[in-house]
Amino acid sequence: MPTDAETACFEAGIKFGTLYHQFAGTPVSPASSRSLETAMAEAIENQPHCEAVTVDILDDALEAELAGQSADYTELTGRFMEVEMRIAYEGVTVNTRMEMEGDYPLMKLVSVEDAPDN
Amino acid sequence: MPTDAETACFEAGIKFGTLYHQFAGTPVSPASSRSLETAMAEAIENQPHCEAVTVDILDDALEAELAGQSADYTELTGRFMEVEMRIAYEGVTVNTRMEMEGDYPLMKLVSVEDAPDN
Amino acid sequence: MPTDAETACFEAGIKFGTLYHQFAGTPVSPASSRSLETAMAEAIENQPHCEAVTVDILDDALEAELAGQSADYTELTGRFMEVEMRIAYEGVTVNTRMEMEGDYPLMKLVSVEDAPDN
Amino acid sequence: MPTDAETACFEAGIKFGTLYHQFAGTPVSPASSRSLETAMAEAIENQPHCEAVTVDILDDALEAELAGQSADYTELTGRFMEVEMRIAYEGVTVNTRMEMEGDYPLMKLVSVEDAPDN
Repeated sequence: MPTDAETACFEAGIKFGTLYHQFAGTPVSPASSRSLETAMAEAIENQPHCEAVTVDILDDALEAELAGQSADYTELTGRFMEVEMRIAYEGVTVNTRMEMEGDYPLMKLVSVEDAPDN
Repeated sequence: MPTDAETACFEAGIKFGTLYHQFAGTPVSPASSRSLETAMAEAIENQPHCEAVTVDILDDALEAELAGQSADYTELTGRFMEVEMRIAYEGVTVNTRMEMEGDYPLMKLVSVEDAPDN
Repeated sequence: MPTDAETACFEAGIKFGTLYHQFAGTPVSPASSRSLETAMAEAIENQPHCEAVTVDILDDALEAELAGQSADYTELTGRFMEVEMRIAYEGVTVNTRMEMEGDYPLMKLVSVEDAPDN
Repeated sequence: MPTDAETACFEAGIKFGTLYHQFAGTPVSPASSRSLETAMAEAIENQPHCEAVTVDILDDALEAELAGQSADYTELTGRFMEVEMRIAYEGVTVNTRMEMEGDYPLMKLVSVEDAPDN
């Protein structure tokens, strides 16, 4: 049987895959990045065991991209955002984070904490 | 050569397909529907020739769905929203609308209007 | 009232927006590109008035991308594919094509042809 | 520090969230379900640590849906598929499965197995 900590980590991974692949490809510009951040966070917070989601769309990175192309918007992808999530499952709290590691948007487990009486 | 009106209608269709298939499947509940409406509208308004987008997520329809199931959120799909868009291309204005027609979310051309001096 | 040709163009646009935003972001490599091409084409051919879809995922472009990065797959986006579609609506046939125009994946109307007796 | 087993479970969750939210909403019918199954499996197998993916689109469930509606295709969602995945990370093998639990497509950890010498 998987442990509660393992299940908590599985749940955390589901949320990350959901967030990324639901919203990657969305047309985005600095003018629309605030509303997209909020919608992404609130959408994923609907999912079971998801306590808190923070999405930061990186306007500087967007602006650098737009400066080098013809259109005035681009498609959302990993290098334009940082994400943090907190998942809680049966007393285990998992903190996760997505950020660029070189050229790859790495989703990683930051910590897995069991409550004292668990 | 396609006419300007035909191209305007093609552009309008692109926006509808984009909106629907980018966001269908998003976890949604009445608590998150306002932020999702705003993000959807602002995302699509980034696209070329797209003047205005209105998305109404139908909280009553969401609540009816949630009342009959175990989870307290569902996935966004056509029967939970109504959408209106205005596209302008080379002096032609196209108004479009998506709403349920029986059991099918029908995207339709409402009007195609050429400017007087076009 | 929109003409049949205008509605045909609107329908063609819907299919393009659908294809692009349903599948953009899919993990892809030369090893999986053939099955993705087939699935994309057959999925969109399900939609009303869609007679034929051809998707070419550009393995050369994929390989060039992979050569410059650490992971051995990437996310599908416009510069890795060319798409052709034929839509038929009430006797009007619309041919459309997506290809890169500079740095932007341009979806365009190639031709709008009314049947002789229409 | 998360254990290898916890990281393996996190990776497994990412793949499930990716598969579901990348492909949910795809137009699907019994005529196109085989190519979609193959493309989904091969796409996700590109991702790191993903050893094997099996997707079964349930033609019987699709046909029951189509019998009750006007269009001859529908949108892919959880009740039309079963998915199994095997993830391997640093000697830990994770088996996962998605199937309907009542009205909800439940993604679950089936087993987490550490190699003997790990």
